[in-house]
Amino acid sequence: MLPFERIITIDRESKVPIYRQIAIAFINAISQGIIKANTHLPSTRDLSKLLEVHRKTIVAAYDELEAQDWVVSVPRKYVAVSAKIPNLKPKKWMDEVNESAYRALFQLPFKQIVVPKVKSNAQLPEVIIDDGFPDVRLSPIDDLLKIYRSYTSKKHSIRNATFGSAQGSLKLREVLASYLSETRGLNIEKEHLLITHGAQMSIYLAAQLLLAKGDVVVVGKPNYSKATQVFEQTGATVVEVGVDKSGLLVEEIQAICQQKAIKAIYVIPHHHYPTTVTMSIERRIALLKLSQQYAFAIIEDDYDYDYHYASSPYLPLASSPHQGNIIYIGSFSKLLDPSIRIGFMVAPFNFIEQGVALRKLIDVGVDGYMQNALAELIRMGELKRHIKKAKKCYFSRRDYLDHLLQEHLKSQVSYSLPSGGMAIWIVLKKEGLVEYLVQHPQLAIRRSAIELNAFRFGFASMNETELEQAVLLLKKIIEGFELQGVKGQL
Amino acid sequence: MLPFERIITIDRESKVPIYRQIAIAFINAISQGIIKANTHLPSTRDLSKLLEVHRKTIVAAYDELEAQDWVVSVPRKYVAVSAKIPNLKPKKWMDEVNESAYRALFQLPFKQIVVPKVKSNAQLPEVIIDDGFPDVRLSPIDDLLKIYRSYTSKKHSIRNATFGSAQGSLKLREVLASYLSETRGLNIEKEHLLITHGAQMSIYLAAQLLLAKGDVVVVGKPNYSKATQVFEQTGATVVEVGVDKSGLLVEEIQAICQQKAIKAIYVIPHHHYPTTVTMSIERRIALLKLSQQYAFAIIEDDYDYDYHYASSPYLPLASSPHQGNIIYIGSFSKLLDPSIRIGFMVAPFNFIEQGVALRKLIDVGVDGYMQNALAELIRMGELKRHIKKAKKCYFSRRDYLDHLLQEHLKSQVSYSLPSGGMAIWIVLKKEGLVEYLVQHPQLAIRRSAIELNAFRFGFASMNETELEQAVLLLKKIIEGFELQGVKGQL
Repeated sequence: MLPFERIITIDRESKVPIYRQIAIAFINAISQGIIKANTHLPSTRDLSKLLEVHRKTIVAAYDELEAQDWVVSVPRKYVAVSAKIPNLKPKKWMDEVNESAYRALFQLPFKQIVVPKVKSNAQLPEVIIDDGFPDVRLSPIDDLLKIYRSYTSKKHSIRNATFGSAQGSLKLREVLASYLSETRGLNIEKEHLLITHGAQMSIYLAAQLLLAKGDVVVVGKPNYSKATQVFEQTGATVVEVGVDKSGLLVEEIQAICQQKAIKAIYVIPHHHYPTTVTMSIERRIALLKLSQQYAFAIIEDDYDYDYHYASSPYLPLASSPHQGNIIYIGSFSKLLDPSIRIGFMVAPFNFIEQGVALRKLIDVGVDGYMQNALAELIRMGELKRHIKKAKKCYFSRRDYLDHLLQEHLKSQVSYSLPSGGMAIWIVLKKEGLVEYLVQHPQLAIRRSAIELNAFRFGFASMNETELEQAVLLLKKIIEGFELQGVKGQL
Repeated sequence: MLPFERIITIDRESKVPIYRQIAIAFINAISQGIIKANTHLPSTRDLSKLLEVHRKTIVAAYDELEAQDWVVSVPRKYVAVSAKIPNLKPKKWMDEVNESAYRALFQLPFKQIVVPKVKSNAQLPEVIIDDGFPDVRLSPIDDLLKIYRSYTSKKHSIRNATFGSAQGSLKLREVLASYLSETRGLNIEKEHLLITHGAQMSIYLAAQLLLAKGDVVVVGKPNYSKATQVFEQTGATVVEVGVDKSGLLVEEIQAICQQKAIKAIYVIPHHHYPTTVTMSIERRIALLKLSQQYAFAIIEDDYDYDYHYASSPYLPLASSPHQGNIIYIGSFSKLLDPSIRIGFMVAPFNFIEQGVALRKLIDVGVDGYMQNALAELIRMGELKRHIKKAKKCYFSRRDYLDHLLQEHLKSQVSYSLPSGGMAIWIVLKKEGLVEYLVQHPQLAIRRSAIELNAFRFGFASMNETELEQAVLLLKKIIEGFELQGVKGQL
């Protein structure tokens, strides 16, 4: 008889039922050729003694093996390994296999996407400076969830939630079309909307549809890096143009157009990422003209449209007269909560139709309950009320951060106060300082540009106490850095 | 003076405030070159008379225009269009532009994904036969939402929900790793898990990482068509092998291996889609051996693992000894509710790391609250209790559908009762009948194969009354079809 007590080891601490452990051990031994076809297994009585478990446990294990066709049993006679199991060479099989397959590395070739090194702190840092997150403490998420729950408790909710909704729920698209027409001067219907998991997914879908190997796509320098990465993944050539205090340098785009065909440009006219500048009217008009003249698409990312403090927000490019070549992108993650994964894309219907087809390949269903709950929140006017409240709050936080920076870090930093958005783009005067900051264990900075010695200071998610805490910590760390410099010189 | 009363039209029914409508009309007229740089606008008094609105409304409109830099004002003197507006040729601009940009078609070239024709019924059909949906009436979604709400009401929930969680929330990955080890014999840690929006997204990510133009990927015939489409989009060559009552014909895969290199095979061993067959033990072993011998990856889609009625489910291929080349995919949409967009991928860490990088390009955030709520549901044992209940219920629905088919449609249909899953694959005997069924206005069938004269009858989402209603409607329609045939012959 085989040494079953060594083949079958039982872990009595494990959450896996013992009968199951025994069955798995047999399956592995059979797969590995240790126990061969037609081998008779020990009687349940013998094995129960050998393994020191109850006989019923062995019976259950054998039943399991039989149900899964690993063994055949002749009642009151024997249980034997199925004759259909191929004759395996145990040694060869064993030698090349890891006991725990997933602990090894994946050994076949596969695509490598550049993964930026993320600092992993041993413990949570004292202060996290995000790149412009909403303050979820203000968010009407509780109202949203109440509505959500009212939908899931209804009978036949399955039909309401999912039927025919790959483009996004009908209700949300209807409400959103009218909301966007009203607030942003977009003259659209529900057919022109595709609901996505966020602005990023809209960028991804637009890029996959528009760009192919060799196409030219223009972005600002610096740019929202995850958009740049998406464009690079398509095989397109990414060409950078400068960004000054009035946005993208459209004359540089013009110069490129005169040399080669551009397929698309990616622009965040409202508050450029990361530098937060607003594109001037002249540049907007010039860009629209260029796109008409040279027939390129504009991917307009307008992720924080609603937060503009000096006046009403500038209307998007997409609201100007154009030929349907502007793909307009927005999101609710910045309005409500980063955990609410709902964004949208506006485009002509034939483009949306292909966007839907591609979206289905990435995510076949939609979170219909949440989409309908959001629609209801908008319809009830709750979203507008929330935006009004949040805007006022963020406006005052922007000014408070400005005040703190002036008070504590005036000689170390330089910045232009943005007319909107949720972050200040801070350039440090002392060389190498941002590199030092991002590596500091007490601090986590979500978006920095070491080559520009600058970072984004998201002010919206912090109240006054938290802003003070963050600025004072920055001050302390910067003073430490300067002291090091002095010591180095001594 | 320009005919401002014709340039500026006001829609008093619109939800857009009137001052905003006026500002938008000015912006459009300026953009289109109708009103040129330096043009003085009429005084607020004059324009208010002309447009028959209150003077304060005009003041508000002009303030808005000034805030957005379209006009400059010299208090008590004039308001004029900014000198910076470029000199536009209105006629040319106007002629080529649609009034409502998005109603035109997108005119630049872009990728066309094959969009299957979806029948659009004028009204909701009487009966929807899905391809295997869970019954959301059984689902513990209310418990899930209660937990969700308890998270969002906590202060600083933003950090818990989103910090460092692009791979999926830490809590869900920890709980899920132990759950999968316990229930499916996978020996994994949280590092080997990537949380996605569903099984489809896991397939998409795996395909994007593994496959490039010219690679060979093997699938069953027939296959889950959205997987095939994903593979085709990568530029890979999709090779089909037969599927019989024991699953994929592994000897056909072997024959292909002997001729050319295979990069990956896609397999649903538990209940093949759409035909519902379970792959036999012999074929499983043979497939694992082949993948080792010829070094190809196995994409194992195990979307309905938990619903196996005859015995415990077969353990996945991924639980067998292998070299880490099995990408194992699962989902919670089939367990809880199609609206819960949470699935996962299991793979060695280096593969998962690239999966995370790609996932970030598609969706930069995660629904941390929902993921943590699901983790808690699993930890509390609620998910297991739900599965036990649902399994019992679906088991009896499968048998009830079998009974109804035998009673009412015995001579028209043929099928093998599946040992698990949520659907029966029904082949119709009368030629052309499925094509007739899918076009019938009273019926919506989600998954059919006209060339095989077959369709999937999802039984899990229907109670006994609904199953009866569906079968009787089918019977009525089929009798109508047969009568037509008789008439045609007369």
